[in-house]
Amino acid sequence: MPVYQAPVKDTLFVLNDVLKFQQYNNLPGFADADAEMVEAIIGEAGRMAEEIILPTNQIGDQEGCVRHDDSSVTTPDAFKDAFNAYREAGWMGLSIPEEFGGQNLPYTLHTAISEYFSSANMALMMYPGLTQGAIAALLAHGSDEQKHKYVPKMTSGEWTGTMNLTEPHCGTDLGLLRTKAVPQDDGSYKISGQKIFISAGEHDLADNIIHLVIARIEGAPEGTKGISLFVVPKYFVGEDGSVGERNGVACGSLEEKMGIHGNSTCVMNYDEATGWLVGEANKGLKAMFTMMNEARLGVALQGLSISEVAYQNAADYARERLQGRALTGAEEPDQKADPIIVHPDIRRTLLTIRTFNEGARALMLWSALKADMHHRSGDAPQAESAHDLLSLMTPVLKGVLTDKGYENATNAQQVYGGHGYIEEWGMSQFVRDARIAMIYEGANGIQALDLVGRKLGMKNGKPIMAFFEEVGEFCESNRENDDLSFFTKHIKKGLNDMQASAMWLMQNGMKNPNDAGAASTDFMHLFGLVGIGYMWGLMAKAAKEKLDNGEGDKAFYEAKMQFARYYMERLMPETATRLARIQSGSETMMAVPAEAF
Amino acid sequence: MPVYQAPVKDTLFVLNDVLKFQQYNNLPGFADADAEMVEAIIGEAGRMAEEIILPTNQIGDQEGCVRHDDSSVTTPDAFKDAFNAYREAGWMGLSIPEEFGGQNLPYTLHTAISEYFSSANMALMMYPGLTQGAIAALLAHGSDEQKHKYVPKMTSGEWTGTMNLTEPHCGTDLGLLRTKAVPQDDGSYKISGQKIFISAGEHDLADNIIHLVIARIEGAPEGTKGISLFVVPKYFVGEDGSVGERNGVACGSLEEKMGIHGNSTCVMNYDEATGWLVGEANKGLKAMFTMMNEARLGVALQGLSISEVAYQNAADYARERLQGRALTGAEEPDQKADPIIVHPDIRRTLLTIRTFNEGARALMLWSALKADMHHRSGDAPQAESAHDLLSLMTPVLKGVLTDKGYENATNAQQVYGGHGYIEEWGMSQFVRDARIAMIYEGANGIQALDLVGRKLGMKNGKPIMAFFEEVGEFCESNRENDDLSFFTKHIKKGLNDMQASAMWLMQNGMKNPNDAGAASTDFMHLFGLVGIGYMWGLMAKAAKEKLDNGEGDKAFYEAKMQFARYYMERLMPETATRLARIQSGSETMMAVPAEAF
Repeated sequence: MPVYQAPVKDTLFVLNDVLKFQQYNNLPGFADADAEMVEAIIGEAGRMAEEIILPTNQIGDQEGCVRHDDSSVTTPDAFKDAFNAYREAGWMGLSIPEEFGGQNLPYTLHTAISEYFSSANMALMMYPGLTQGAIAALLAHGSDEQKHKYVPKMTSGEWTGTMNLTEPHCGTDLGLLRTKAVPQDDGSYKISGQKIFISAGEHDLADNIIHLVIARIEGAPEGTKGISLFVVPKYFVGEDGSVGERNGVACGSLEEKMGIHGNSTCVMNYDEATGWLVGEANKGLKAMFTMMNEARLGVALQGLSISEVAYQNAADYARERLQGRALTGAEEPDQKADPIIVHPDIRRTLLTIRTFNEGARALMLWSALKADMHHRSGDAPQAESAHDLLSLMTPVLKGVLTDKGYENATNAQQVYGGHGYIEEWGMSQFVRDARIAMIYEGANGIQALDLVGRKLGMKNGKPIMAFFEEVGEFCESNRENDDLSFFTKHIKKGLNDMQASAMWLMQNGMKNPNDAGAASTDFMHLFGLVGIGYMWGLMAKAAKEKLDNGEGDKAFYEAKMQFARYYMERLMPETATRLARIQSGSETMMAVPAEAF
Repeated sequence: MPVYQAPVKDTLFVLNDVLKFQQYNNLPGFADADAEMVEAIIGEAGRMAEEIILPTNQIGDQEGCVRHDDSSVTTPDAFKDAFNAYREAGWMGLSIPEEFGGQNLPYTLHTAISEYFSSANMALMMYPGLTQGAIAALLAHGSDEQKHKYVPKMTSGEWTGTMNLTEPHCGTDLGLLRTKAVPQDDGSYKISGQKIFISAGEHDLADNIIHLVIARIEGAPEGTKGISLFVVPKYFVGEDGSVGERNGVACGSLEEKMGIHGNSTCVMNYDEATGWLVGEANKGLKAMFTMMNEARLGVALQGLSISEVAYQNAADYARERLQGRALTGAEEPDQKADPIIVHPDIRRTLLTIRTFNEGARALMLWSALKADMHHRSGDAPQAESAHDLLSLMTPVLKGVLTDKGYENATNAQQVYGGHGYIEEWGMSQFVRDARIAMIYEGANGIQALDLVGRKLGMKNGKPIMAFFEEVGEFCESNRENDDLSFFTKHIKKGLNDMQASAMWLMQNGMKNPNDAGAASTDFMHLFGLVGIGYMWGLMAKAAKEKLDNGEGDKAFYEAKMQFARYYMERLMPETATRLARIQSGSETMMAVPAEAF
């Protein structure tokens, strides 16, 4: 069975030493999260992920979900106890306002612990994960009545939530949706239609399932301007919060998927199901994006989570598997062979994953802190600029962390040789599970298009300029520091490539949108390289300070410095290739006739 | 069900117009393969792959193989008829000498058609594929008696073959093997031990299975110097070629794998099984490499095969799936949405796969032609230099075509959005099947090490210098041609990066083998980029000639020119990043202590 140890020490390093988490204790909820409290929370979440959640992962993949003739769905046996332990510990409500049963702690902490839980069992953690997105939508757009009716029981995990967007003929292009909503005299709507790929659409882990569904009200405009959001509970909820009759929504079938077998992916049939409008009529797309942006960050985290757990197993295997000899002569002459970790190509593989993971973790937490500043800062310009940076970073995190998460899982699997291909070892599951994260909540091509088409030019480019300024300032202020100039040199080179790309996009993408589209994926990855490179700059600086002061675990900080160096030497050079591709434009690819493909 | 159309036109373009296949008609067997004959063979193989083999692919994945209590293994139902049709058509023996029942046609043709069959069903084609490797080993190292006893029935496909190398504790490092061979008075050996990951080890498609097994003769030296190769038939073969009693070898269990479910991957238990030495005692490693090199080319082809079939499906889907609008305005205003092939990012995805596939196909055939020259040329220096180039190219083909084959299958799957993740559509199978090709017959890290550690320096670097010279000469002689200078400029830039890398390796890799190991995978991919880039140069030149002469299908050659341009603009720039990584050396990665990973 795969192993997993929550990277508590690394999370704390990022929070305390890199992001200086404690300096935000003027924000609501942060004062409750002093250093001791943070360490206790992170540590306890790590322990539960390792001891309670991880053991359910592989058996969940093997057992899968089963739909029965009465349309009910059972999840893998072991999931019940694990989910109970998770919700009873209160993890669902960590950063939900107290008014709705939560603890109102920083979202940054929620992000930190969610990584652990998804490493331990991604498929299981999708049940609460989708619930978080539904809660966010209800809190942002629901009526007071809706909030109080649904959110507390979702926060406690007694009920779960879903997002119902996709239909057979429309995924990305929701303007094509056909599910219809017919207004009733009592203010409710009758919802009819079919939704597909609904994660956690039906299951046996909760007493009720609160579906958030987009549909078109009869007579509404065509396209995305006629989309409304509805809340459709599986069971009606009485005035007293009790669960009553069954609503007209049921799971028609389960999809056979490549991975995440423990999560029920449902075809959901709505047959005059009763729903209530969330927010304004025909403004459903905006409400949906509240859910979606939250969900995108959750999916980004899944990419990191799988990359981390796959890495840990590969590193263990590489230390244990005896095969061949070091290129420079036997390192363990008493053994029949050396452990394969002596080989540079194995180290290259492992360090490429690890330096990505640690950089991505820092970037996730850096971004989550922006979400907290947006929601909690009393300073309006600070809140706004935090929100802008988070908006800019969301597609980058989603696209890059999931693309690399899958690639990293594949490379970790490769360390096992033939054993990696056998299901017994668990590495195949990591790859199969990681694969979906590149697709759902907006396929990564859509993330890239969101980035270059919408986010790059938002507010006249203010957010991207703020990012350039922050990274540039870091390079400038540390470039004469002998300990850091190696890092700033590489980061600055990457930043230059990124700025040249942005400039090229401004000059060409406006005139010819196809140039922007053709550049989008490369620009997204270029952004990821520089974003993570910047994190490594911050981490190297923090680690060096610790070493200079003789504080803490010397080996940990020395390794950090080596990882930072590796990232600069081996990963940053890719920015040049990305720039060259971007600048090659769209002419060639658009010249090929569709039938010649 | 996935579709597939054998790329007959492209294969013929490479053979006839790029490689000028007919100019080799002085080689034995080539005279029989005139242009008409080649077209008939290629066309007929394509037809059978499409009509007979393809329909068995998805059901084979779903049904899988089953081991029964008596240790027998049944393959998916549909495999029997398909395999019968394949062997009865004589495809097994296409390039086997007539003396052993084959047709002695060029190996290049065998390579061309094998691509089609593996596209149609990779798991099924492994049964004959492994047989080809076993035949090659027997023909090269077996006694006359062994050749005549086993090869004709393997050529006809009545019997199949296997390679038994791996043991639980040794894969890459075969020096650790424990399977022992005890000499008997009659000159045979009793073989005992356990082999794992034995593809096609036991099945119901053939009347006998001829296992080639490496083992250590009692008292033989330790390590690789004490390895011998044995032939161990499942059933003993009488003087008259009849199949007799069962030998002491049986399938202990089947592995549960990520993919290639239609192929039986067996744990094989040898319990005093009777075997006969193939070649000399303790020289088994050399004989094994004959098999292995053949198999590596076969596996390289699998990478291309899956990439091709995955591409074709993604391109069809992109032409049919209506979703969203072109960035420059509706292209099909009468439809509710445009087909997604209007989007630059979809085109980028598809062209990145397609230009790889066509370049890889050319490089495979270019290399296969070297194998034919090696085996058939009467001119000794020509035969030798062909062999050297093939030896150099084998790890590059295996490593690069399978790494990219998997990546391409993943990207083709991505075009489908959520549907790509559902098994029903078949794209997940392509990814799961393609994954193994990066691992077996020497994991790709081993290929890279073979390249930089053994092949680069062989014969004082003569083979690599010959490659540099050939590519350099192409660039030099076409650089003043206005139609080709765009291509030669990019190829030359890639070649320069590759030469700089080779120079760096010579200067550093000798002094510090870890520098070579750290550079190996990047150098292998750099080689692949330049090798395929060179093929695109040759293809652009051939296509331009056709266009200038007004010959043939104009649209086909125009598309070729666009694809060539795309490859130069979008894929060649990666050489710079590879060079930078190579030149960063091994110091950082080797400095990290094993326990810090």
